[in-house]
Amino acid sequence: MDSGRLEAFSDGVFAVAITLLALNLAIPGPGHGPLARQFASHWPSFAAYVVSFLTIGIIWVNHHTLFKNISRIDRALLFLNLLLLFFVVAIPFATGTVAAYLSHGGADASLAAVVYQGVFEGMSLGFGTLFWWSIWRKHLKISLTPPAARAAIIRFGTGTIGYLAAIGIAVLSAPASLLISGLVAVYYIFEHTPARPR
Amino acid sequence: MDSGRLEAFSDGVFAVAITLLALNLAIPGPGHGPLARQFASHWPSFAAYVVSFLTIGIIWVNHHTLFKNISRIDRALLFLNLLLLFFVVAIPFATGTVAAYLSHGGADASLAAVVYQGVFEGMSLGFGTLFWWSIWRKHLKISLTPPAARAAIIRFGTGTIGYLAAIGIAVLSAPASLLISGLVAVYYIFEHTPARPR
Amino acid sequence: MDSGRLEAFSDGVFAVAITLLALNLAIPGPGHGPLARQFASHWPSFAAYVVSFLTIGIIWVNHHTLFKNISRIDRALLFLNLLLLFFVVAIPFATGTVAAYLSHGGADASLAAVVYQGVFEGMSLGFGTLFWWSIWRKHLKISLTPPAARAAIIRFGTGTIGYLAAIGIAVLSAPASLLISGLVAVYYIFEHTPARPR
Amino acid sequence: MDSGRLEAFSDGVFAVAITLLALNLAIPGPGHGPLARQFASHWPSFAAYVVSFLTIGIIWVNHHTLFKNISRIDRALLFLNLLLLFFVVAIPFATGTVAAYLSHGGADASLAAVVYQGVFEGMSLGFGTLFWWSIWRKHLKISLTPPAARAAIIRFGTGTIGYLAAIGIAVLSAPASLLISGLVAVYYIFEHTPARPR
Repeated sequence: MDSGRLEAFSDGVFAVAITLLALNLAIPGPGHGPLARQFASHWPSFAAYVVSFLTIGIIWVNHHTLFKNISRIDRALLFLNLLLLFFVVAIPFATGTVAAYLSHGGADASLAAVVYQGVFEGMSLGFGTLFWWSIWRKHLKISLTPPAARAAIIRFGTGTIGYLAAIGIAVLSAPASLLISGLVAVYYIFEHTPARPR
Repeated sequence: MDSGRLEAFSDGVFAVAITLLALNLAIPGPGHGPLARQFASHWPSFAAYVVSFLTIGIIWVNHHTLFKNISRIDRALLFLNLLLLFFVVAIPFATGTVAAYLSHGGADASLAAVVYQGVFEGMSLGFGTLFWWSIWRKHLKISLTPPAARAAIIRFGTGTIGYLAAIGIAVLSAPASLLISGLVAVYYIFEHTPARPR
Repeated sequence: MDSGRLEAFSDGVFAVAITLLALNLAIPGPGHGPLARQFASHWPSFAAYVVSFLTIGIIWVNHHTLFKNISRIDRALLFLNLLLLFFVVAIPFATGTVAAYLSHGGADASLAAVVYQGVFEGMSLGFGTLFWWSIWRKHLKISLTPPAARAAIIRFGTGTIGYLAAIGIAVLSAPASLLISGLVAVYYIFEHTPARPR
Repeated sequence: MDSGRLEAFSDGVFAVAITLLALNLAIPGPGHGPLARQFASHWPSFAAYVVSFLTIGIIWVNHHTLFKNISRIDRALLFLNLLLLFFVVAIPFATGTVAAYLSHGGADASLAAVVYQGVFEGMSLGFGTLFWWSIWRKHLKISLTPPAARAAIIRFGTGTIGYLAAIGIAVLSAPASLLISGLVAVYYIFEHTPARPR
């Protein structure tokens, strides 16, 4: 079974999820005070949009890089991919929730940020499992030496640990946790799966 | 006529429908009580999201598996596929409705659950007809022995009967019917069309 | 230039538009009377959903059939295709508007139905122009005899005239015009572009 | 790395963004005065829909034309493409905002129009950078003579300067700036990247 249709379906989900993010940008509109003030008080929506857009964009880049190197798709891989998409689909909801509560402070802001980072953590674990399965079942086109495979898994794990840290920090400060997940996204711009042929 | 574009269009519909599911997760937001209580009273939305996500995901996996084995597309198959998509597109609406009424109990919860399970039943019948047509008109790449074809249809029918049972149970208890359709989804994780070459 | 990416983009638009149709099905929800009565008074939404779903589905089938037979894409064809999509994208809006006013009667119902049928008319003219251009500029893989080409254009024109009639009838009765466009959709299930090789 | 999946993902984003534009067309509905008057006072939504639809359509046509001539995709190109999509995804939000304020006049209308034109400017700069990178890193299938490359960049820059002018004009008159971006769109119907083989 080739990966063409799995990639097409996943690309569709990534594309819809990343575009739905912008629905959260909508401001209250006429009759709710000067537009400039509406934009200013709406900063959490813009900040969360940037972080979530970058995160989904990077998942897509890494998904693309990984599946380019996968030679065989089994039924387990289809369902592990669905697990990953389960969390991707929840990102617009989590983004809207954290944006609504970010500037409120207190327990509600922390809870919203924990949910947001929790969705990222779930996505990261889903992707990690997918990656681990494709190495373990030898579905990759290239064969990794044991140290290379270990390095790959550690590097992949960076996101998982980053989001875990963000969950912890969210309890103390929701905006700080948003910053952490933004940094994880920036990290993945420069780093990537070692499955990529050099 | 090859199946490429039918699959691309169907994948698009599956991807949009599965991603729109998450719109139903949106909570009322600031000014409607503590966020934790909002999440807690919102459990039917999360439960319905899980069941619907899994169901659409599995339809996609089975659609993928079936069309990989179909060698020829005729005009009837295009319209049978549209019939299947007709019900798939209605799933986010049915999910939102059942989630809104699930914890209300009484006749409204039952009616909402009957509609939800009815959409699944329609989807299941649409898929079954598509499958039956592709066997009957010999559109499959492999040829099934009569017992294998019979086994396939029976196995396919499990979902149809499962959703029919869920409709009946919905009259008595909406949450119980949600559980039934969740179990049907789990069944299809492990079972699938025998058209798959071994 | 091959038609692959034009088809992929168009399929994406068709898939999103057909799935967004279901957003119009949403009922007011808890606190707005018994659910059964909400569904009953919501019949125009369901009727309009069926007609619009079938119409977009058939546009897709015909688009698919036409482009399978087109050998060359020029820049004009890209923009004629955009013109067609311009009206396709407006269908969910027109469907929601006609559904909201259908049972109100009077001038508002007629106006809503005129807009709805006008969007279909625009779509039909867009498709007709696309078809005419691909014949005129000899972009089809097969060459049509003059009578076959004339027959094709007449047959194609049936929709254009059907929607024109529906606009006229909409002034008298909005529900009757909905029925007309439903009949046009049924007509196209059985009829299609003669560009199809036999 | 071939460009297939980059194009599929981008097409998905273009298709969703262009279709979401129509959500802004929704009128208040029954109970908000005669439908004809609702449509009439809703003209900024229709005007903004036409300009935004045409703009996204043309971005797609140019994206298509450019990537048909790109022979190699590197990681930087993936992220430059994400930068372009970052602004494309924001177009429905910016369209809804400018439509809501266009007929209000004053500082709010100007600010909304500045944001709208600013999103177009960002999109234009993103596309320009993508184009410049693919020339500079010799990713194009054809090799441009230095004057042809210079001409290409100047021609590409027309949009960037056009949107910059529209930002300036937005401060004076929001409707006039909408007209300018409409003219830029019309310009790109007739003009295009010289990377196109003749």
